[in-house]
Amino acid sequence: MNMNVVFMILSTILVWIMVPGIAIFYSGFVPRRDVTRILFDSFLMFGLAGLLWIAIGFPISFEGNNFGIIGNFKHLFLSGIDLSSTYGSTGLPTSVYLIFQMMFAILTPALFLGAVASRVRIRFIILFVTLWSIFIYYPMAHIVWSTNGFLAQLGVLDFAGGTVIHINAGITAMILAITLRDPYKYNNEQVNGNPLWILMGTILLWVGWYGFNAGSALNISAQTLNAFLTTTIAACSALMAWIALEKIFKGKVTISGICTGSICGLVGVTPGTGYVTIFGSFLIGIISAISSFYFMNYLKYKLHLNDYLDIFGCHGVSGIVGSICVGLFATKTVNHNVVTNGLFYGGGFKLLGVQVIGVIFTIIFVSIISIIIIMGLKKLFKNQVGIKQLSLELA
Amino acid sequence: MNMNVVFMILSTILVWIMVPGIAIFYSGFVPRRDVTRILFDSFLMFGLAGLLWIAIGFPISFEGNNFGIIGNFKHLFLSGIDLSSTYGSTGLPTSVYLIFQMMFAILTPALFLGAVASRVRIRFIILFVTLWSIFIYYPMAHIVWSTNGFLAQLGVLDFAGGTVIHINAGITAMILAITLRDPYKYNNEQVNGNPLWILMGTILLWVGWYGFNAGSALNISAQTLNAFLTTTIAACSALMAWIALEKIFKGKVTISGICTGSICGLVGVTPGTGYVTIFGSFLIGIISAISSFYFMNYLKYKLHLNDYLDIFGCHGVSGIVGSICVGLFATKTVNHNVVTNGLFYGGGFKLLGVQVIGVIFTIIFVSIISIIIIMGLKKLFKNQVGIKQLSLELA
Amino acid sequence: MNMNVVFMILSTILVWIMVPGIAIFYSGFVPRRDVTRILFDSFLMFGLAGLLWIAIGFPISFEGNNFGIIGNFKHLFLSGIDLSSTYGSTGLPTSVYLIFQMMFAILTPALFLGAVASRVRIRFIILFVTLWSIFIYYPMAHIVWSTNGFLAQLGVLDFAGGTVIHINAGITAMILAITLRDPYKYNNEQVNGNPLWILMGTILLWVGWYGFNAGSALNISAQTLNAFLTTTIAACSALMAWIALEKIFKGKVTISGICTGSICGLVGVTPGTGYVTIFGSFLIGIISAISSFYFMNYLKYKLHLNDYLDIFGCHGVSGIVGSICVGLFATKTVNHNVVTNGLFYGGGFKLLGVQVIGVIFTIIFVSIISIIIIMGLKKLFKNQVGIKQLSLELA
Repeated sequence: MNMNVVFMILSTILVWIMVPGIAIFYSGFVPRRDVTRILFDSFLMFGLAGLLWIAIGFPISFEGNNFGIIGNFKHLFLSGIDLSSTYGSTGLPTSVYLIFQMMFAILTPALFLGAVASRVRIRFIILFVTLWSIFIYYPMAHIVWSTNGFLAQLGVLDFAGGTVIHINAGITAMILAITLRDPYKYNNEQVNGNPLWILMGTILLWVGWYGFNAGSALNISAQTLNAFLTTTIAACSALMAWIALEKIFKGKVTISGICTGSICGLVGVTPGTGYVTIFGSFLIGIISAISSFYFMNYLKYKLHLNDYLDIFGCHGVSGIVGSICVGLFATKTVNHNVVTNGLFYGGGFKLLGVQVIGVIFTIIFVSIISIIIIMGLKKLFKNQVGIKQLSLELA
Repeated sequence: MNMNVVFMILSTILVWIMVPGIAIFYSGFVPRRDVTRILFDSFLMFGLAGLLWIAIGFPISFEGNNFGIIGNFKHLFLSGIDLSSTYGSTGLPTSVYLIFQMMFAILTPALFLGAVASRVRIRFIILFVTLWSIFIYYPMAHIVWSTNGFLAQLGVLDFAGGTVIHINAGITAMILAITLRDPYKYNNEQVNGNPLWILMGTILLWVGWYGFNAGSALNISAQTLNAFLTTTIAACSALMAWIALEKIFKGKVTISGICTGSICGLVGVTPGTGYVTIFGSFLIGIISAISSFYFMNYLKYKLHLNDYLDIFGCHGVSGIVGSICVGLFATKTVNHNVVTNGLFYGGGFKLLGVQVIGVIFTIIFVSIISIIIIMGLKKLFKNQVGIKQLSLELA
Repeated sequence: MNMNVVFMILSTILVWIMVPGIAIFYSGFVPRRDVTRILFDSFLMFGLAGLLWIAIGFPISFEGNNFGIIGNFKHLFLSGIDLSSTYGSTGLPTSVYLIFQMMFAILTPALFLGAVASRVRIRFIILFVTLWSIFIYYPMAHIVWSTNGFLAQLGVLDFAGGTVIHINAGITAMILAITLRDPYKYNNEQVNGNPLWILMGTILLWVGWYGFNAGSALNISAQTLNAFLTTTIAACSALMAWIALEKIFKGKVTISGICTGSICGLVGVTPGTGYVTIFGSFLIGIISAISSFYFMNYLKYKLHLNDYLDIFGCHGVSGIVGSICVGLFATKTVNHNVVTNGLFYGGGFKLLGVQVIGVIFTIIFVSIISIIIIMGLKKLFKNQVGIKQLSLELA
């Protein structure tokens, strides 16, 4: 046991907090009747995605390797896994790595469920998340984070989860919104946005992000401190960029804007947080904010996309931008795990190309598999996926 | 100084959070007029039970020994206690042990005060908690946690406080509700349950429970990690069990159910968290959920018990079930402090018997002393314990 | 890397939490229309005061020295600063010290902005905080905390920020309230105080204060534990003192009172938290509560001061009282950095005199410079500082 374990316990608790955090954040934007359901679905993930992770997820994501896509199936229900042994090269007891990663497996579905809460039956949620975990999340975790994963082998850098978590959640949210009928159509009068809950959600997310990003170093080291600083600075610069954009293009600034802006910065810096400098993170925050702002306020209307809670606009867009930015800003001086410097640090287009491949693979993989899952479930439910009245299932 | 101190500071802060956490949780279930009072009474415990702990509680709970029931009275107001010296076999500075235990002495009354808030005068609360602390809590802490305590000597295992905290709080709440007239009688229309505050209370409790359970190891070790994992898993399995029970027996699932379920799992795993395996904690979560669900939805009505906020139903029932489960699931492979394995691990009925004795002793001891205290105070107040109008004492 | 870094990361996160904490606390006291603006202004500080700290604040506060008043200007935008090197005698990487101090630079303006939120344009806030940071906060941080600062050289003791943060914020709030027209004039009917948000703000503040006070030791040591305990005890004793005062002088106790009381205790103990004994902190809590209670309920009306959110009454008054109390209660037995004991510990009037000088200097320095800044801005804005309608700038 050493101090890294204390740090990872703190980090695990912080990521835990993000799960109710995202639910509370979304709850500030939806009509009163939808609040309960969004909270319920997110909290359900602790039981559903959490237990599934212990039983199936960890063994097949992080034990063994098949084709660089998935681990082996010998250790289901943790059988044969010695939780007190050191896990791989992490230097941490397996139990610590297991539970830290468990929080990500719980958080990611909570990120996208806001896209459909109140519009689908709870049994649909349960089946979808189960299949999505097995066929999308666990493979993605293996592909990117396992040393044998094929994107890891290719050299894709994703420090804390830009592809596995944010692009994944953003794309899934988009596919869910497109494929399910009866999209959200709120107008502003209906939505009684609550600034206190929006802020409270943002607090829980930002604080949790310190565990998410700095904790992804898996120890306390120079990289951890770099992640801690770059996380803070990207959030700060994105926040300032967002209110500048609001002032310029909309003539007014808002509490939801300042919160959304900071979250976009946090998403954007996530893949590069341990690879970029402070100045790099400052720029990544601004680039993420501009990209997400443009998507949320113009592009989504032009493309007639139904992204009511801006889940794709925030996690998808800033996740994509941030992952590509690693190819621009990553530098060996920050982290010796960076084999080739990013474009702006003299490494040429190599890393940039690899990062783009990682992003495109994630988008295609998640899109295809999630469409297949949804189509299958629609057939199973004989198209009775949606619900008319909330009170039927939840009070 | 070492990293254990850092971990205990984190744990102390986490248990601190549970005090407002439980108040906020209860506040989501009561009519608007009672919210303020529940918050006030709980927060008052920081000052009242906190200072009392420093002045009297710690010295007589954890210094010296008289008959295995209480410590000695030589160190009142910490006189003669060197806070920088190492406390007993904990390896921690006495100051750290003092303040970690202080949070439990504050939390336990906050758990049961919801049973009477708004129904009794604040001066009754102040006198009752003072006497309850001196005559119930400090002896219980000595009896179970001091190495000289007679239940500790008997071999009762209570890792984080099933008897001292949860059964104690549950029984006290029940006795208070029974002995005071004018019980709560809310119907559903009156109560405007707020899902956001119920969830926020649950968040604070669950997060705090990591400090409560893992912190009770008093250091960072394999037991600590075991406690961290079993705490999480029992909460997850209880949560899933609860919504299954709601769906089966009530036909609908609720946000208050998913929150209550997870808290019952947390209560249930508390006494065994450092003694049972992951699979054991999974089962304890389910057993706790079933027991508390049965009590809250059927037994309490059959017995005509007034347990409006389900304080006994949650902390009492799951506390009793969890304490007994230690006699079933405790195993030396998890913790070498387990002298005899539980029934399911080949240790026979010995530990089970000891645990049952611990539970029965706690129930009887707490019941008798709390009845005596209440009767005495009723006499003192000439039966004018209750209040008619909240505004008389609190605005 | 060592465990002190883990502790400082935890402390930094805790101080982070105080920024939204103070905004949420204030939001519980203002009319609904002002809530959004108070939240917005405080959250804006992350971007504004945060980035300013990285670019200018840290370099000129803590690098080099000019006349004991300010550092040098060679390291603007962190140029030439090696973040991974150990900072001075702290034993911490510079990056850790940088970000821990960053949170104080963000928090302090958030403390006083409540005094004018909704009454001034956002552009006024941005300019005022920028100038206030450069001409008041950075010099104050250098003067008191840099080893070369002239008050530090004089022997003024300020463990966690009584002068730099609380007196500074209190005086600035007062000057802002006096110099801006259209003061707040709410009557009780207008203000729909929300006890849950008042409590939530207090929770975030109190929990954050552990990082603020214990973290100011910059390591985990006997002083850190002393700070942790004295912080807790001063809050507890102040809380009890406040409700006793309310009961005696106003005939009723309130949730806002119990929260305000505990915060006054936390403010009061801040300058001495690492220098005084447990009993000392107990008395400091009571003295702070009495002083702030007297000011808030009597003196401010007698002096016709406009201190609607009691920012001066809490942070100013308890900050002044607490700073002076260091001259009474500081003792070498707690901290060998105390060169001369306080008056009550046989050190005579020397330290008391030095502390009084520190307080008076802070009051005069902050008053004069902030008046100059406000006058300048008023001229710049041609007196159009205030706003009539919130909706013009924020929705």
